[in-house]
Amino acid sequence: MNIPIAQRMSRIGTETAFAVSLEAGNLARQGKKIYPFHLGDMNIITPSVVMDAAIEAMKKGKTGYCPTAGILELREAVARDVSQSHRIPLSVENVSIQPGGKPTIGKFIMAGMNPGDKVLYPNPGYPIYESQIDFHGGTGLPYGYKEAEDHFILDLAAIRRGIDDGARILIYNNYQNPTGASSPKEEMEELARLAVRHDLLVLADEAYFDIRYSGEPRSIAGFPGMAERTILLYTFSKKFAMTGWRLGAAIGPARFIENISKINVNDESCSNHFIQYGALAGLQGSGAEPQRILSILRERRDLLVDRLNNIPGIRCFRPEATFYLFPNVTGAMKRKGVGDVEEFRKLVLQETGVSFCTRRHFGRPLPGETEQYIRFAYSGIDADQIKEGMDKLEGFLK
Amino acid sequence: MNIPIAQRMSRIGTETAFAVSLEAGNLARQGKKIYPFHLGDMNIITPSVVMDAAIEAMKKGKTGYCPTAGILELREAVARDVSQSHRIPLSVENVSIQPGGKPTIGKFIMAGMNPGDKVLYPNPGYPIYESQIDFHGGTGLPYGYKEAEDHFILDLAAIRRGIDDGARILIYNNYQNPTGASSPKEEMEELARLAVRHDLLVLADEAYFDIRYSGEPRSIAGFPGMAERTILLYTFSKKFAMTGWRLGAAIGPARFIENISKINVNDESCSNHFIQYGALAGLQGSGAEPQRILSILRERRDLLVDRLNNIPGIRCFRPEATFYLFPNVTGAMKRKGVGDVEEFRKLVLQETGVSFCTRRHFGRPLPGETEQYIRFAYSGIDADQIKEGMDKLEGFLK
Repeated sequence: MNIPIAQRMSRIGTETAFAVSLEAGNLARQGKKIYPFHLGDMNIITPSVVMDAAIEAMKKGKTGYCPTAGILELREAVARDVSQSHRIPLSVENVSIQPGGKPTIGKFIMAGMNPGDKVLYPNPGYPIYESQIDFHGGTGLPYGYKEAEDHFILDLAAIRRGIDDGARILIYNNYQNPTGASSPKEEMEELARLAVRHDLLVLADEAYFDIRYSGEPRSIAGFPGMAERTILLYTFSKKFAMTGWRLGAAIGPARFIENISKINVNDESCSNHFIQYGALAGLQGSGAEPQRILSILRERRDLLVDRLNNIPGIRCFRPEATFYLFPNVTGAMKRKGVGDVEEFRKLVLQETGVSFCTRRHFGRPLPGETEQYIRFAYSGIDADQIKEGMDKLEGFLK
Repeated sequence: MNIPIAQRMSRIGTETAFAVSLEAGNLARQGKKIYPFHLGDMNIITPSVVMDAAIEAMKKGKTGYCPTAGILELREAVARDVSQSHRIPLSVENVSIQPGGKPTIGKFIMAGMNPGDKVLYPNPGYPIYESQIDFHGGTGLPYGYKEAEDHFILDLAAIRRGIDDGARILIYNNYQNPTGASSPKEEMEELARLAVRHDLLVLADEAYFDIRYSGEPRSIAGFPGMAERTILLYTFSKKFAMTGWRLGAAIGPARFIENISKINVNDESCSNHFIQYGALAGLQGSGAEPQRILSILRERRDLLVDRLNNIPGIRCFRPEATFYLFPNVTGAMKRKGVGDVEEFRKLVLQETGVSFCTRRHFGRPLPGETEQYIRFAYSGIDADQIKEGMDKLEGFLK
């Protein structure tokens, strides 16, 4: 039997960044020294306050099922945390614990999008948005980011065009992967106004909300008329260096969250029970651990931005959040006589061992796009390795 | 804004058994002593060999992402385990680690079923099959079980009718929840013949495969022509008392498993990293721990079956597998003058504190069904509480 595969599988996407990991891994096995800037993973270990509480819960027998929306104490703690940071009223019925940040994307699409619905999503952006929209029968409308003087700005004109074209759902990722962009107040305000005026349902992917080096926290859910139409993607992955634990939450209006929890019942019953006590201890902690993690990341950011901007043909902003940089390498590519950004990536990897993703791993280029970008993640590489890698890159591109 | 909910959410089901937990919990809070036979959860703690290995991995920093299909060592170990028990050749590419046993149901449906496809599923049966079929736009064709002399048998006639009606997918749960049924060799052979002759795609839900008190292990995947068309639902939940850890696997033909792993990338990235080392240690262990768990469960089974069969108007088989009993209570209901099985459940709960599910929690009754059944789970209640509960039930029904 040639086992049959359902038609919808032809519409599912993937994270092509994994192919970069594979390439880098193959080179490493051949003895090549690799500088891993392609990974969105973290090489920082989870704080012991989180580990100890998870272990204690495990040993106390929190090894059976828990409620499908998560343990009550954690839902309360998340509601409190986000109420404060977002200045919106939240309680337990607004929180559904998830096995990671990512599950909220697919569940938001399943619970909110009908087949044929038009959905605005960022491009360059996290590739899973487009994949889940397509997989569940929607139509994605990409919107881009543009370079301003010292930061990326949303292409609001593209968003307005999408709304004119009939979009009824908006996916918004602030703070953004891969650009590192964070919306200034005015930009977010205008986006919120558009969403309210045109009655959009919104997914605010805030996976990097707590990876902020400066500035006041700002969420679109906090603007007038937004809390009632916004689902927040919340995760423990970044602020507590818990990527591999798989724990996050969907947060939003009770009726929508109840529907997401119905999907939990069907898809996985519940998230791992005892690790929820670990996350709870993290939230109840002093905040020193997230600060320690942030200070490690800040040092890496500053080092990497400075070094990149010192290389001819590379221009790089210093984002106030995320652990990504999205340098413009149009000039460097010209200098090397390379026209294709993926060809550039492979050349640099081969010649220097410096491994990164490109704009291509975050969606298909938009019409009229002429500038070339690559993405550096600095969450999985120490400062001394950043220096060494930048020496190599500078030597190659000079 | 009245937040919009997608139409498909009107087709999603749930586990109504949770409502029984809620009812029992409310009574318990009012001071009523409850005997929890409604739970499919386990009150047996996870073996320390599993816990210790998970803790060690956590502390060693296995707290970042792992491959989407799981760590290689665990995929290898699962492939080896199932190769041996099922006598089919399997290797890593046949195994995709999942955050629980349940995720394999939804992913099987998404990867294998097109909208409009007809899918045979057991009723009485685990309610998530019907829910996922409906949710993703298929048409469910239920088939039942019938009482033979000392065990339940598959309604093969209903399966043949479903095939005549155009079914192209079969969901088969052996060993079965809620009936405790296990197919004799001849029955499984006939089912396999039908599947091969009519080119069916098969999901074999083997969540209870290792909760076997007697008899040789038997899987439909081991019959001629079946391995190439069968996806196995495998879980660590039961044999290692790991229900709340959420860890399992989808096992089957490489092409199908690759598609399931594509869904992993989209839905949750990967399963929790460090707990996979715990499960690996469990599989590499002596087998003493699963035996210890089985012997606890066997004692409970024998006690409960004996006591139930001692109550007038109750007839109960002694299943060779699972931790469920599905007694016929038609006579007991007549004696009490109760016509509705849910009314019977509530009456018994109110009067005795003995809490169980009914046939109604496992699908809508089929046309022509006249006998009445309830379901006892004995995974979450100790022997002394079983005795006490049965004293109460016997006193009430005598």
